Amino acid sequence: EASATVIDGKRVAKDIREEVAVEISRMKDEIGIVPGLAVILVGDRKDSATYVRNKKKACDSVGINSYEVRLAEDSPEEEVLKHISKFNDDPSVHGILVQLPLPSHMNEQNILNAVCIEKDVDGFHPLNIGRLAMRGREPLFVPCTPKGCIELLHRYDIPIKGKRAVVIGRSNIVGMPAALLLQREDATVSIVHSRTKNPEEITRQADIIISAVGQPNMVRGSWVKPGAVIIDVGINPVEDPESPRGYRLVGDICYEEASKVASAITPVPGGVGPMTIAMLLSNTLLSAKRVHNFR
Amino acid sequence: EASATVIDGKRVAKDIREEVAVEISRMKDEIGIVPGLAVILVGDRKDSATYVRNKKKACDSVGINSYEVRLAEDSPEEEVLKHISKFNDDPSVHGILVQLPLPSHMNEQNILNAVCIEKDVDGFHPLNIGRLAMRGREPLFVPCTPKGCIELLHRYDIPIKGKRAVVIGRSNIVGMPAALLLQREDATVSIVHSRTKNPEEITRQADIIISAVGQPNMVRGSWVKPGAVIIDVGINPVEDPESPRGYRLVGDICYEEASKVASAITPVPGGVGPMTIAMLLSNTLLSAKRVHNFR
Ligand SMILES: NC(=O)C1=CN([C@@H]2O[C@H](COP(=O)(O)OP(=O)(O)OC[C@H]3O[C@@H](n4cnc5c(N)ncnc54)[C@H](OP(=O)(O)O)[C@@H]3O)[C@@H](O)[C@H]2O)C=CC1
Ligand SMILES: NC(=O)C1=CN([C@@H]2O[C@H](COP(=O)(O)OP(=O)(O)OC[C@H]3O[C@@H](n4cnc5c(N)ncnc54)[C@H](OP(=O)(O)O)[C@@H]3O)[C@@H](O)[C@H]2O)C=CC1
Repeated sequence: EASATVIDGKRVAKDIREEVAVEISRMKDEIGIVPGLAVILVGDRKDSATYVRNKKKACDSVGINSYEVRLAEDSPEEEVLKHISKFNDDPSVHGILVQLPLPSHMNEQNILNAVCIEKDVDGFHPLNIGRLAMRGREPLFVPCTPKGCIELLHRYDIPIKGKRAVVIGRSNIVGMPAALLLQREDATVSIVHSRTKNPEEITRQADIIISAVGQPNMVRGSWVKPGAVIIDVGINPVEDPESPRGYRLVGDICYEEASKVASAITPVPGGVGPMTIAMLLSNTLLSAKRVHNFR
Repeated sequence: EASATVIDGKRVAKDIREEVAVEISRMKDEIGIVPGLAVILVGDRKDSATYVRNKKKACDSVGINSYEVRLAEDSPEEEVLKHISKFNDDPSVHGILVQLPLPSHMNEQNILNAVCIEKDVDGFHPLNIGRLAMRGREPLFVPCTPKGCIELLHRYDIPIKGKRAVVIGRSNIVGMPAALLLQREDATVSIVHSRTKNPEEITRQADIIISAVGQPNMVRGSWVKPGAVIIDVGINPVEDPESPRGYRLVGDICYEEASKVASAITPVPGGVGPMTIAMLLSNTLLSAKRVHNFR
């Protein structure tokens, strides 16, 4: 039985981290600048704390300085804005991340808009998204997860131009920017979402599927055109009594079925997941290079 | 033989102008404010001069004050920027238009970015396009031509939610924002462009087609699913010895064929064309209402 190439995000992410590390030490040697990333964490959600810790570790591993601010769950919004403003003005900081979700008493939009666009390494600012959507304009930063998806396609030499692509999901952080990126590379893009009727009819036409939904195993083998390439962004915990933690992580794609039909597919975990942080490091480096005009 | 409902953009545009006129006189009566639109025209392209004249006439007809600046073809960019800045600061101006195309020595991007976003009644600022693309964000203004397309669908009670929509063309001023608008209304959207292979396979699946390409009669009857609704943005001159001007205007859609298959269709001229200026008036009114907090 034919079986798809496994797109090894873990290995690609490692390659990228190494490339970033090399560039960072070159920059340090030549102009004495070390990129810096500031992370603001509000409240004590366990998952958020884990993400922040992983980001810090990744920064350490490539030589990016990381700065962390932790604020209590009940901090006033002004407190967050004050720290953002300080980081905006701090020349040793080249990227600023506000870990989401924020406590419900805060206005996420206000807070994200406060990050100056030159340091918005997440690429979530509407001005940046607007530039991503527009022909002839260039975004300052491309959002990390969708950038990681496209990078996987590039590193596996998968052609995008002229191909039919379907993005499942249209969130601001993954689905929508992924669709804009595919279109920038001249794919013909369709966007499937929760109001789409018969999504399988659409996915079945796709040469490339990017799924960012959050529904375990939603995309069955029968949804996939033979030879299609599948990028599975979904990370969904499902019960698994045999796993020590009682659950395991699966994607949006029914891997067992789809890997028999597709020509290439990302696993979960080990596919898109590791790429997101690698792209964050790469965006932070890009920011430092840009502000110091270093090539 | 079945024949499609003709979507009468001329009539709808007239209705909208009347509605706008009523609101403007109510605003004048209640708070003494008259909306104002400033138009900057550089150079002496005949078509641009005609567009500007038509906009002025339309303003007059609904009671919007219009201000016009005409600059010589060889004016320096700073001259345009100076006028924009003056209009930005002028409280009697609620909308600023820079007629495109600009002379080639000018940086269009710089100039468009100089219009303050509260007066960007064209809705072309990337910050505005970003908000249009993002869920949970609201653009200040929706670009006039795509807004006109959606308005026609609304006024003819054509459902959008859950429907398959195909937009042909992805320009910053029509195709791309039209696709974003359809998606905001929960259509499942595919975008076809010049790199798309076999576009007819995609259009044939559409319940709604919006075409903004600029190719006369490109979309044949066989490209259309029976019962589909077609919005034809294209305005293309084709030779016609029988016409007094030697040419006539046709759309991107082969009207004769498509009107036998579709359930509703816009003619060219008299479809989307008149809607664009109507939407400009409506955006200018909206801007004045917003700044004066008038409901
Ligand atoms: N690998 C990584 O680093 C990352 C992974 N993720 C994972 O990706 C997944 C998506 O995340 P995110 O984009 O933030 O999620 P959101 O919940 O913000 O968006 C989910 C999208 O999926 C659509 N959707 C929901 N149900 C269906 C359905 N049955 N059929 C088709 N579309 C559907 C929704 O449609 P509608 O808009 O109509 O509601 C929505 O657009 C999650 O599993 C998340 O854990 C996310 C970020 C990073
Ligand atoms: N009614 C009105 O008020 C208005 C009417 N118009 C009319 O609408 C039309 C489009 O205008 P505009 O958006 O400014 O034009 P642009 O030239 O900026 O964009 C045309 C788009 O069509 C795509 N395209 C070109 N050829 C093909 C093809 N063979 N198949 C599929 N797609 C194709 C292009 O693709 P790619 O991106 O790959 O190059 C591009 O995205 C014109 O006729 C114009 O006169 C425009 C504005 C207002």
